[in-house]
Amino acid sequence: MPGISKKGLQMPESPIRKLVPFAEAAKRKGTKVYHLNIGQPDIPTPEVALEAIRNFNHKVIEYSHSAGIENYRRKLADYYAIYGIGIEYTDLMITTGGSEAITFALNSICDLGDEVIVPEPFYANYNGFAISAGVKVIPVTSTIDTGFALPDIEQFESWITPRTRAIIICNPGNPTGYLYSLQELLKLRDLCLKHDLFLIADEVYREFAYDGTRHHSILNLEGLEEHAIVIDSVSKRYSMCGVRIGTLISRNKKLMATALKFAQARLSPPTLGQIAAEAALDTPQSYFDAVISEYTHRRNILVDGLNSIPGVYCPKPKGAFYCVAKLPVHNAEDFARWLLAEFSYQEHTVMVAPANGFYATPHKGENEVRLAYVLKADDLQHSVEILRHALTHYPNKA
Amino acid sequence: MPGISKKGLQMPESPIRKLVPFAEAAKRKGTKVYHLNIGQPDIPTPEVALEAIRNFNHKVIEYSHSAGIENYRRKLADYYAIYGIGIEYTDLMITTGGSEAITFALNSICDLGDEVIVPEPFYANYNGFAISAGVKVIPVTSTIDTGFALPDIEQFESWITPRTRAIIICNPGNPTGYLYSLQELLKLRDLCLKHDLFLIADEVYREFAYDGTRHHSILNLEGLEEHAIVIDSVSKRYSMCGVRIGTLISRNKKLMATALKFAQARLSPPTLGQIAAEAALDTPQSYFDAVISEYTHRRNILVDGLNSIPGVYCPKPKGAFYCVAKLPVHNAEDFARWLLAEFSYQEHTVMVAPANGFYATPHKGENEVRLAYVLKADDLQHSVEILRHALTHYPNKA
Ligand SMILES: Cc1ncc(COP(=O)(O)O)c(C=O)c1O
Ligand SMILES: Cc1ncc(COP(=O)(O)O)c(C=O)c1O
Repeated sequence: MPGISKKGLQMPESPIRKLVPFAEAAKRKGTKVYHLNIGQPDIPTPEVALEAIRNFNHKVIEYSHSAGIENYRRKLADYYAIYGIGIEYTDLMITTGGSEAITFALNSICDLGDEVIVPEPFYANYNGFAISAGVKVIPVTSTIDTGFALPDIEQFESWITPRTRAIIICNPGNPTGYLYSLQELLKLRDLCLKHDLFLIADEVYREFAYDGTRHHSILNLEGLEEHAIVIDSVSKRYSMCGVRIGTLISRNKKLMATALKFAQARLSPPTLGQIAAEAALDTPQSYFDAVISEYTHRRNILVDGLNSIPGVYCPKPKGAFYCVAKLPVHNAEDFARWLLAEFSYQEHTVMVAPANGFYATPHKGENEVRLAYVLKADDLQHSVEILRHALTHYPNKA
Repeated sequence: MPGISKKGLQMPESPIRKLVPFAEAAKRKGTKVYHLNIGQPDIPTPEVALEAIRNFNHKVIEYSHSAGIENYRRKLADYYAIYGIGIEYTDLMITTGGSEAITFALNSICDLGDEVIVPEPFYANYNGFAISAGVKVIPVTSTIDTGFALPDIEQFESWITPRTRAIIICNPGNPTGYLYSLQELLKLRDLCLKHDLFLIADEVYREFAYDGTRHHSILNLEGLEEHAIVIDSVSKRYSMCGVRIGTLISRNKKLMATALKFAQARLSPPTLGQIAAEAALDTPQSYFDAVISEYTHRRNILVDGLNSIPGVYCPKPKGAFYCVAKLPVHNAEDFARWLLAEFSYQEHTVMVAPANGFYATPHKGENEVRLAYVLKADDLQHSVEILRHALTHYPNKA
């Protein structure tokens, strides 16, 4: 029987995969499970987007241009202009989710054995994309004690080698919710210019910035024009993860021409998704205002609630819809399994993502969990109470 | 300025890319261009699929399971059963087009430097997928004189090395339209079993078999259960290329578990596309009967027409909707450019794909072109007349 690849063997399981059978078993027993482990928002997709789908009236669902429907690309350039980001429509390419944009970026700049430096904890699927592309992820640890602020630039510098091709950041961050300050971004800019590295910023949570803070795009950093690569997506912005539409953006023409060759090989991003995404650009500001205020409310309930539990510490993030909390347990994965397999409170329990899977350094984050606040406020409130009870009864406390 | 990857530099341009500016210039001059160069069918998408899209009534367009919507996968297994292919729904995974299925297959079985043997001429994008995955394509030449029949098995065998991981075939073939006989497939089976190689069959044109012939799936080859990997797609079957829905099929559980990890990294195939594709399974047989009879008619007009032009030779293919023709010219790429840049007949011209781009061996197919018969019969008839006149006037004839 022919074997599978080393690459395939190295591909990590998702951080919550091992827990799924326990969640299913809990449900079969009649326990209601609150899913704090996933990033699939419950917010309705904007009506304009749904309407565009219902009004689809072509006779053939055709391939689009490999870089996306030109009209959509042009309108998208206008959207970025609202954020003060001046780009041509040729500086952006439509991809099959932000996921594909990351793969195109890595393939365009890295060969086998090349390295990318990423502050950890980071979006776990970067590992999968890196393995697919034959690229090594070099983690630089950020800590919960500083609220996951950017690690010292010296730390980055100490990991730079001739194989280093890029630094990847996620801003606002998944799993941390951390929103980088302009100062932190300027430090990264200087570092990338000094060592001639690409700076890849995953800005898929751009709109989710709270407490009056503002998201700063690396596309606005002067001098970084040839080095900045932005990953974007409509998945979370318009709560339409299933359309699979993302964007790769860079003013570096050579990079975009290279990425286009990878895009041509796979022919076309999804046509129906592009139609929905183009229509979504007309989503009224009131939609975002309501979403931001809802997420702010949810975050406060979840994070304030967590911090009111003895021994729990959770920095209050300014962006995205995730937070990482430190729990008074030895091993958060054991705790997460116990929550599903052995615990319930009024026939309810919660599912959380052990944070260890978001770190590349072994044994980091072993007493941390990632929680997503994509549930209704009442459910989050109830989830906090479940966790409070669980931590009172958990036998393996630290 | 940071450089791009060697991988990116190696990525080929599409075989027709260089011609596109000439086609655009011709159109600006007012010349009508018949596009015989593309595989985007003009056949209407089945009404059941379009209706499913128009009836979309969810409030949120969510991610699906990474392997696809379970209900769709189950129905798809029933569809294969109609072709006598007995598989469980867990033996198949929904991908973002057949394109992604090829990438998952390569990544799951090949590491950098591994080799796959492919009869040439072959679908040019296999090169791109192979480069992305760090895999070497080893071509085995089939020739127009045998109508692109399977090359001798000894030829394959002479190229097998310890790095060989798979043989890839496309059946029916793009660009040749060649439909493999059961005997040819049995020879490939024996070869793969002897050397413990995977056999990957790209069967995206399965339904397009003419003259009462039958397509044989490698999934039905006894003894090949652990070695057979099938690539499939709804793009051409239902003329809905833009939904980006394909399938990866194998009874090899380890392979499918590995492919699933790559699928999980990119989260989900397109949800709207899956809804259209699931509905398309109810397309009435009358739709396919009409399509097959239309394509047979078109093929006859195109291929018989081509063979009536002095010096042109085009084997009549039994499948897909492409053919490769040998022209009485020294260089088909020069001829294709001349057609667009310098020639017109009654203010019309044609765009063809130089076949050289479908061969991996340098200088092969230099006097051949690939033609797709996805235009209406009248347009094809007219295209043949244009080519006849063009070849009469072309100054660089062989
Ligand atoms: C940080 C981050 N980047 C990228 C993605 C990919 O999303 P998509 O492929 O749906 O655009 C996600 C999805 O959760 C994410 O959290
Ligand atoms: C032979 C072959 N395989 C695979 C594909 C990929 O198609 P898709 O990704 O649209 O399923 C094509 C498209 O033209 C093809 O001709």
